[in-house]
Amino acid sequence: MTASVLSTATALSVPDFLAHWQGHRALTRRVIQAFPEEQLFTFSVGGMRPFGVQATEIHLVSAMTVDALHSGQWPAPDWAAGPTTQAELLREWDALSERLSQVGASTDPAFFSARHALPWGEMPGWVAAIYAIDNEIHHRAQGYVFLRALGLEPPAFYER
Amino acid sequence: MTASVLSTATALSVPDFLAHWQGHRALTRRVIQAFPEEQLFTFSVGGMRPFGVQATEIHLVSAMTVDALHSGQWPAPDWAAGPTTQAELLREWDALSERLSQVGASTDPAFFSARHALPWGEMPGWVAAIYAIDNEIHHRAQGYVFLRALGLEPPAFYER
Repeated sequence: MTASVLSTATALSVPDFLAHWQGHRALTRRVIQAFPEEQLFTFSVGGMRPFGVQATEIHLVSAMTVDALHSGQWPAPDWAAGPTTQAELLREWDALSERLSQVGASTDPAFFSARHALPWGEMPGWVAAIYAIDNEIHHRAQGYVFLRALGLEPPAFYER
Repeated sequence: MTASVLSTATALSVPDFLAHWQGHRALTRRVIQAFPEEQLFTFSVGGMRPFGVQATEIHLVSAMTVDALHSGQWPAPDWAAGPTTQAELLREWDALSERLSQVGASTDPAFFSARHALPWGEMPGWVAAIYAIDNEIHHRAQGYVFLRALGLEPPAFYER
């Protein structure tokens, strides 16, 4: 295997990436549901933001990324916007998953290798896109600790 | 864009995937270092495993995945093995990062699309490989909560 052949070999295809993302979205949805409504936006450990606030940030970053998949543009979201109740969060979550299915099916394959201007810097599309998933896994895992601290069993991590 | 063209389009190339993994490994190393030695394998929130134990599991899953990148084989690790002190963990961490650099440069590109038999089921190589990164982000984020609960500032998530 020469370096030049390896450099263009595919690790994840675009459909792989989209399926991976949707699997994580389904798991995060179960974590949002696992919180008692009255604790989703109030309970915290170590002075961190409650999980509902973190999930709203995940939602805003994800919506920004889905929009960019469609338009190639990355306008900064209004971080003060977004759902503030469990029901509203789940409703907007489902709508975005549906929009990702639609937008994903017509993604420009050049999106991932092209460079993009984000509010926090210029980077290749794959770095910008996978950041949305990394950010989701990171904040969701903090929700796992909050659930444990509440004495609740979180959803299985390996189920997507 | 027809569905057939999109289905073979690359989201992440093999070098992208390897760079992404090494970036996460560098961040997790900083999280391991951020714990006071005396709390790495003892401190916990909500009855969870201490971060040192979680980091050892990350290490064993990662070592298994690096070995598979080289051999295509996935023997179950000895989960009772692995480092038990901060210094030993950091030493084994660095050795594995170095091994990933070597093994990664000669990865068979067919690894990611081929199906593999893991101790927990059969799956495509990309699913098996990215699970190691997902598992790392997930457990590392729980370490972030433990650090906050200890009154310590974790490393910046977006720095790799």
